[in-house]
Amino acid sequence: MKPTTDDLGAYGQLYCDELLNSVVPFWLAHSLDHECGGYLHCLERDGTPFDTDKFMWMQSREVWMWATLYNDIDPRPEFLDAARLGAEFLRAYGWDAQGRMPFAVERDGTPFIKPRDIFSECFLAVAMAAYGTATGEAWAEEMSRRAYDVYLGLADLPKSHDASTYTGVRPALSHGISFIKVAMSQELRRHYEDDRFEGVIDLAIDTIMSKHVRADQQALFEYVTPDGRAIPGPMGRQLSPGHGVESMGFILLEAGRRGDDQLIDRACDVILWSLEAGWDDEWGGLLYFVDADRAQNRKLEGDMKLWWVHSEALVAAALAFKLTGREIFWDWFERVHSWTWERFRDSDCGEWYGYLHRDGTVALTLKGSMWKGFFHLPRALMQVQALLRVDGEDEKRGRC
Amino acid sequence: MKPTTDDLGAYGQLYCDELLNSVVPFWLAHSLDHECGGYLHCLERDGTPFDTDKFMWMQSREVWMWATLYNDIDPRPEFLDAARLGAEFLRAYGWDAQGRMPFAVERDGTPFIKPRDIFSECFLAVAMAAYGTATGEAWAEEMSRRAYDVYLGLADLPKSHDASTYTGVRPALSHGISFIKVAMSQELRRHYEDDRFEGVIDLAIDTIMSKHVRADQQALFEYVTPDGRAIPGPMGRQLSPGHGVESMGFILLEAGRRGDDQLIDRACDVILWSLEAGWDDEWGGLLYFVDADRAQNRKLEGDMKLWWVHSEALVAAALAFKLTGREIFWDWFERVHSWTWERFRDSDCGEWYGYLHRDGTVALTLKGSMWKGFFHLPRALMQVQALLRVDGEDEKRGRC
Repeated sequence: MKPTTDDLGAYGQLYCDELLNSVVPFWLAHSLDHECGGYLHCLERDGTPFDTDKFMWMQSREVWMWATLYNDIDPRPEFLDAARLGAEFLRAYGWDAQGRMPFAVERDGTPFIKPRDIFSECFLAVAMAAYGTATGEAWAEEMSRRAYDVYLGLADLPKSHDASTYTGVRPALSHGISFIKVAMSQELRRHYEDDRFEGVIDLAIDTIMSKHVRADQQALFEYVTPDGRAIPGPMGRQLSPGHGVESMGFILLEAGRRGDDQLIDRACDVILWSLEAGWDDEWGGLLYFVDADRAQNRKLEGDMKLWWVHSEALVAAALAFKLTGREIFWDWFERVHSWTWERFRDSDCGEWYGYLHRDGTVALTLKGSMWKGFFHLPRALMQVQALLRVDGEDEKRGRC
Repeated sequence: MKPTTDDLGAYGQLYCDELLNSVVPFWLAHSLDHECGGYLHCLERDGTPFDTDKFMWMQSREVWMWATLYNDIDPRPEFLDAARLGAEFLRAYGWDAQGRMPFAVERDGTPFIKPRDIFSECFLAVAMAAYGTATGEAWAEEMSRRAYDVYLGLADLPKSHDASTYTGVRPALSHGISFIKVAMSQELRRHYEDDRFEGVIDLAIDTIMSKHVRADQQALFEYVTPDGRAIPGPMGRQLSPGHGVESMGFILLEAGRRGDDQLIDRACDVILWSLEAGWDDEWGGLLYFVDADRAQNRKLEGDMKLWWVHSEALVAAALAFKLTGREIFWDWFERVHSWTWERFRDSDCGEWYGYLHRDGTVALTLKGSMWKGFFHLPRALMQVQALLRVDGEDEKRGRC
């Protein structure tokens, strides 16, 4: 049933309250490393750190989130201070001797794990762009631009971001590489100018929609050949419903900005396919990985229910509803909302659990890890409240 | 309650029947790649292949298993033919241009994934040693010796087997590297002579018992500093109950061979600690990973129940009972046996499931994957039936 304006407002308020009264206070209280700079992000259920290693994805994402809360939601001094704590840490320890961002550093910034991928540079780029806007400090924008250069320089080299296969064997396009190009360029565009942004976004959207999306199979494939054909074997059949909805969220934003109704429709189709492929008819919730050909799970964690998948599904459903008014997206929003809020939320300690078993019971009680930080959940809460509450302009997220 | 000779005989017969009437027929029927050589080992519940990539751990392990069935259990021509199919494939495609074994090759042998670790060489060494005994072909022993050289040459170089960390940062000893030295050298010793075997075994056992095992914490730590101290953080607290019992099984074999009662007692202690740390009081079964300090699980797959952990626990408990006669090991054998056989066995299609949820329900219905092959289960069935049925000599496994 279509929601009334009051319904939307009530949901918006709920998401806003959750952001500012549960999630933000948890990370403000437990994550800031006043001793060594940066953030502690491997946190028990109650916020106690269980590890002090610093994974750079999480450092950069948290800088971005604090800076964005300051820029877009509420210019509270504690948000800016929190952003600065991470930004200065990244300024000091963000680059290794080879000019790459380490995958992880020790608590004091000593490089620990070498680069595993190019996403560390992506998150650094968006972090420093938002921080540059918050503070006006020129070094931050410079660091962002350099990180963007590194990402683009490595993104299209065959396998340069994946050293595990022999050169030339079974080359593949990664959907992740392309959709992050869209998301990163969109975010940087909010903060500074670069002649490459539009072209990078266009080309990445084209790659995704013409090579990864296959209408005949109603699916978005994570890996395809460079000319967009199927890769034999499980890798070629792998669907990631969470990546599907997240990616289409960014593409919908772009389509909405351009008023490209055809692209809106195509992205909305992929959102529906992803939700339908991922939804677990037996237990509810969205599966982590799905094989395009069969229901059979082939990954240890494939049938788990993850917070980020559900967070991104809420954003995509809300955005698709906002852009199209189609009731089916509101139905999906409410279906995902009720399953998610009932199981992931921790009303005792704040924040949300990240990892549930297939049946919806909590598998890991931790609140932060090397993969879970202050990012997907607060970003989703922020975006959904803005979508539902504010008759928004494209580039304005809306204050709580 | 202590078992009677009849009890032991009945269990032995059960394990023997399961090996020869369920597990062996499944792999004979579904795994042999008569078209391209080697083995298909990514198999659905009913044996249908879902992937044709060939992971070299699995190729070598399967060669070893067929050759060992032929050598030790029953010299059936089909066992030797099955061993030959894999051995000739490894002879042709086992080494890459850099003189290492690829981690995976495509169905036709084209190198696909580069070396990730040195265990591929370990399993190649034992495969070719057993195959050399089965056939008397000199090239097989030569290939085994070369693989042993590669393993030993790389095993002790700091981080040479793990390129993920920056040089010199947080050096660690890996329990896996050491216990595989014991297992590999023990197996090779059955097939040919090498002056290094005894020294490698002695040193590896000493490293494990003096550096990885800590009596004050009643635990075997997977990673410690080179001088045997605790590594801060979750990596340093990680216990792997499956590795614990598997490792102690090899050490018990050595201690039994030498008549070293003190080492038998120490290894038996570690088996008990591992079983107690791993046993899930809520749902039963053995957890995959445990943190030494807390019950809290921090890995996605940490609370799953895996076939190989339970297989190795059965071997260790049976062997410890055989060597000591202590009732507690028989109690553990029966406890693990009944939980395991009830949940992992697939009486409809043969073979066993590999991956259960914490609550014992089947998470993945597949019978083979890049990590599950024709190895842990048949080896355990073979070893347990020999331990329980035969008043065995150390070096003789006992025919079914």
